[in-house]
Amino acid sequence: MTKDKLEKVAGNGLISRRHLLGMGAAGIGVAASNSVLGADAGINFEIPSWSRTPGPGASAYGGRSRYTEHLQRTHGAPNPTYPGGGSSRSPLQHLQGTITPNSLHFERHHAGVPDIDPARHNLVINGLVRQPLVFSYEDLLKYQMVSRIHFLECAGNSGALLRGGNENGTAQSLHGLVSCAEWTGIPLSTLLDEAGVLPEARWIAAVGADAASMGRSVPIEKALDDVMVALYQNGEPVMPGQGYPMRLFCPGWEGNISVKWLTQIKLTREATHFRDETSKYTDTQPNRSSYKFTFPMGTKSLITSPSGQMSLDRPGIYQVTGIAWSGSGSIRGVEVSADGGRTWADAAIQGHQLNKALARFTIPWEWNGGNAVLQSRATDSQGNVQPTRDAIIAERGTISFYHNHCIQSWGVGNNGEVTNIYV
Amino acid sequence: MTKDKLEKVAGNGLISRRHLLGMGAAGIGVAASNSVLGADAGINFEIPSWSRTPGPGASAYGGRSRYTEHLQRTHGAPNPTYPGGGSSRSPLQHLQGTITPNSLHFERHHAGVPDIDPARHNLVINGLVRQPLVFSYEDLLKYQMVSRIHFLECAGNSGALLRGGNENGTAQSLHGLVSCAEWTGIPLSTLLDEAGVLPEARWIAAVGADAASMGRSVPIEKALDDVMVALYQNGEPVMPGQGYPMRLFCPGWEGNISVKWLTQIKLTREATHFRDETSKYTDTQPNRSSYKFTFPMGTKSLITSPSGQMSLDRPGIYQVTGIAWSGSGSIRGVEVSADGGRTWADAAIQGHQLNKALARFTIPWEWNGGNAVLQSRATDSQGNVQPTRDAIIAERGTISFYHNHCIQSWGVGNNGEVTNIYV
Repeated sequence: MTKDKLEKVAGNGLISRRHLLGMGAAGIGVAASNSVLGADAGINFEIPSWSRTPGPGASAYGGRSRYTEHLQRTHGAPNPTYPGGGSSRSPLQHLQGTITPNSLHFERHHAGVPDIDPARHNLVINGLVRQPLVFSYEDLLKYQMVSRIHFLECAGNSGALLRGGNENGTAQSLHGLVSCAEWTGIPLSTLLDEAGVLPEARWIAAVGADAASMGRSVPIEKALDDVMVALYQNGEPVMPGQGYPMRLFCPGWEGNISVKWLTQIKLTREATHFRDETSKYTDTQPNRSSYKFTFPMGTKSLITSPSGQMSLDRPGIYQVTGIAWSGSGSIRGVEVSADGGRTWADAAIQGHQLNKALARFTIPWEWNGGNAVLQSRATDSQGNVQPTRDAIIAERGTISFYHNHCIQSWGVGNNGEVTNIYV
Repeated sequence: MTKDKLEKVAGNGLISRRHLLGMGAAGIGVAASNSVLGADAGINFEIPSWSRTPGPGASAYGGRSRYTEHLQRTHGAPNPTYPGGGSSRSPLQHLQGTITPNSLHFERHHAGVPDIDPARHNLVINGLVRQPLVFSYEDLLKYQMVSRIHFLECAGNSGALLRGGNENGTAQSLHGLVSCAEWTGIPLSTLLDEAGVLPEARWIAAVGADAASMGRSVPIEKALDDVMVALYQNGEPVMPGQGYPMRLFCPGWEGNISVKWLTQIKLTREATHFRDETSKYTDTQPNRSSYKFTFPMGTKSLITSPSGQMSLDRPGIYQVTGIAWSGSGSIRGVEVSADGGRTWADAAIQGHQLNKALARFTIPWEWNGGNAVLQSRATDSQGNVQPTRDAIIAERGTISFYHNHCIQSWGVGNNGEVTNIYV
């Protein structure tokens, strides 16, 4: 197929999805002679060493290739005044699909990662219940569990984007505090039913066993809805950085509320006003008043390739791909623009469109070698549409930091370099 | 709720799923005093060390808890006459949900694991095509990809069950050659379209870059349907044990055909009759003739808890849970019996019921302290029903080894010990 036959669906090179399967990357494969394979193509077909000699056999616990060890979470240096505090960000620009492997799932800690012996860890349910209960880890393993694929996003993710600067920002550095996994655990409603919730209980207070005693309040309606006590992540016990031996998991809500190393759930009349729901995770408005509780994460998307710090090596056809999610439902669709939002085209959603889970979108794009601005805009199953950065700033001002879900703009220069820009 | 109010749904203690959420594990939680928490319950509420001192901060690549390191794949000792050959089995009895973490995904190697430099690896498409093509790893990364959650099962999984013996067998040792992941890759049809499949091409021959040059033939209809060249597994590049930098992935078909370390796809008129489709992976019948090609894996299920080598510590209510899958579609339902197949009850399917993917089932069971035989029986979306061991043996005899998908029976003794039995 020649380029002039490509059906355009929006400005500056976005191409019809009908070309997706038939054309691939437009003949990237190098023609090879059939008889003396590769000789004409200038490709070195020496038999490599790994095809000559058997490698090591099966192992008890698999590792990754040494050629992929650059896929790492990034995190700040230890801070002596905040021991164990900080976060690590997922390398979104190197990941594909929708599941995040456990070792690369983002982290956020308030007093580091406790090394918990599950045999000495308990979960207490008390407060406004008919019968306070104590559960050991072994007890909980015997309960009926459910499995759900859900994203988790730190409320502070993408906050830096509101402040300007960050021309060197990448998908990882700007947005790497979001990940997605299959979480398996006990519906919290099961355990609360067993304890017997008293009618006057309107909130739960969930507290972790870390040295910060990190605690958060959750309204009883959510606690009895889809919240779980998660024991497994992508099939295996949750890792210490994710809350081993157990964490609260509140689908679609800001990550901090999914309390890790969960050790107590107390039923209360009012919100407890923990430090992390007063001094942090609040949204300060232009008039300096703050919203205390902003629970669901916004409808959001992000192009992960091409993205900041990448470089396009020649004009031609590229696959634009990224992730989209919403704390209020599933992703109905994602639009992509290559001209800074003047025109938009529908991207294809790969595979499943699950409730409160990452969706993967893709659309082919022909880069003509000139300047371009790539953006994506998600719409969720409730009809919520991802806002522009200007719209967020107009509404909230720039003191606010948390819960930013604005459209990300990647600028492509005529040298092919991709940078974070503000339009 | 008292036990005499439990609604029975089948013999020997299977309980209505309506009791699942309301009752949990029937009061496993220990009553605790609300005022002096735990003092009455005899539980040690000393503040543990990990709640007193901050732990280490965020890291670049997460690891698991030292308390979960017993979750390992099992594999045989190296065999000097078969260097690098062998397999490792997933610890199914310790996993939950449906996704298998990459480090615990089963392996099967024919010449060990090659240490491939992706910059020196090529994928060639040749044979009956209009234009032979060579793709580098970098080339392939630019193509449109799709993501799908699929199981993978070795054709030899559960084969030992046909032979008898194995009283000490576990879910892992008998059935651990099945796993499930989100696979992301390029539809093979995209690459074949680009090369231009000639009308006389009826098969592809897929060959790996390992020292075995492991090769398999795939009918062109399947190759153009849902087969992919998989580059990512659960979001990250496939691990070396799974085929880094790329593998063929043939959803629902015997694992061996999803050729790892894929380096060549040749279009042919006939099947190539590789060693691994003549001397292996064939089903020998009672009359000593063999079926050459048995592609889709059967409709199958397995109780993973309670399962072999586990022990029930007291009469009471247990959650029976396991996995089910079919190479021909999704899982429509799973029935469970506690009396060796005399009576059956429908288990609950947790979460998603995806095409050619593991499904997780569960049902509560009240063990009365006597002998019991636990079985599960899957039905897929095509109406295929998992057969008994007797039915498989009556049909195929006992020379056959591959593609066994018979019902597994776990015997529970009056001492609570669970063993593999044949009924």
